[in-house]
Amino acid sequence: MKSKAVVLVSGGLDSTTMLAIAQQQEFDVYGLTFHYGQRHDGEIAAARRVAEAFQLTTHIVVDIDLRSMGGSALTDDIDVPKNNSADEIGSEIPVTYVPARNTIFLSFALAWAEVLQCNDIFIGVNALDYSGYPDCRPEYIAAFQEMANRATKRTVEGQPLTIHTPLIHWSKSKIIQRGLECGVDYGMTTSCYDPSATGLACGHCDACLLRIKGFTENGMTDPAQYVN
Amino acid sequence: MKSKAVVLVSGGLDSTTMLAIAQQQEFDVYGLTFHYGQRHDGEIAAARRVAEAFQLTTHIVVDIDLRSMGGSALTDDIDVPKNNSADEIGSEIPVTYVPARNTIFLSFALAWAEVLQCNDIFIGVNALDYSGYPDCRPEYIAAFQEMANRATKRTVEGQPLTIHTPLIHWSKSKIIQRGLECGVDYGMTTSCYDPSATGLACGHCDACLLRIKGFTENGMTDPAQYVN
Repeated sequence: MKSKAVVLVSGGLDSTTMLAIAQQQEFDVYGLTFHYGQRHDGEIAAARRVAEAFQLTTHIVVDIDLRSMGGSALTDDIDVPKNNSADEIGSEIPVTYVPARNTIFLSFALAWAEVLQCNDIFIGVNALDYSGYPDCRPEYIAAFQEMANRATKRTVEGQPLTIHTPLIHWSKSKIIQRGLECGVDYGMTTSCYDPSATGLACGHCDACLLRIKGFTENGMTDPAQYVN
Repeated sequence: MKSKAVVLVSGGLDSTTMLAIAQQQEFDVYGLTFHYGQRHDGEIAAARRVAEAFQLTTHIVVDIDLRSMGGSALTDDIDVPKNNSADEIGSEIPVTYVPARNTIFLSFALAWAEVLQCNDIFIGVNALDYSGYPDCRPEYIAAFQEMANRATKRTVEGQPLTIHTPLIHWSKSKIIQRGLECGVDYGMTTSCYDPSATGLACGHCDACLLRIKGFTENGMTDPAQYVN
């Protein structure tokens, strides 16, 4: 029987690639998506498309209420920055940073892993393209794993948890290359921080710029739908 | 100006005592309560009474969806155990254990602390009366603090976070004694895992038994309302 793994699925390019990798490693994937007061619901729709395309037996969308705390352009009414240069992207912690987001996400994954009796969690963090986010760095992930292994009945009773971050040191270009090798259709994914009302990507926020560059470096056009 | 502190407020005896201690230590308390699919809403009502009695400027109730993951008598349809002996209570991890609950609670507290620009979180864990819960032990709290200090923009930029657990080594009897010294009215708190439809405590679950014993040891009758 395959081992179970909880995989954080956002509907974006990175987590979709990671899901393909987890399935290649013969894990039975349990998809976990969060609805956290994002300004648009396109991410949730993309996550559901991805879960269906990969034929996950179980995919849950957990509602969490980050908006009541505020503090981010992704959940508050702060403008998403546009047309940053490659030097500007990742040079400092961006306003799109959501306080403690990965800690909250991983905490729910830890809870579900215990209920599922599972020892593996996958999260698509990337320290290279998003160096501005402290909770995307290897030392953060190591500290979370250490804490998790003191936190639950299962982990303290001899079933330690491993947090897998296969993309953590990869460039966007390499992530896309690896996903294409796994047959990922990136047309079903969405990365934009500020999509149009009909769900088209803006093409100018940091997430769009990094993604477009990654496809260009693979000699391809991004199959996502853009406004212009 | 007083320093801010995020204090986890459950409406129970322990967190109410801790709130009194935090105010005595001159913290400006920001109360954080979770609505997490508890089987009864009496806890939330008690938390609101406590927040009002202590005149907190800010008290938020955050909705989280633990029920979708299952795995506990407090969120699932598993029977709450009754009339355990003193030896049985705490001898093993009880079915009322909620997977990764304190990790999830502290993760939200961490997020809010960053938004509030605050360096202190109080959580009313107790390693003595609840030795069965792995996430109530000092080594768990230390590991969470370590992780938190690598997790957020604020903590990595030279404003480390401290997690205060003033009750961690105290007996229930000592917690009550200390709260009475601070003038806490325990009549407004609720601890029962399985209250009646009208909100009366059952008097027989582990939480009730520990609480009643604590008041008896202080030569008092518990001012909470019991079914019989």
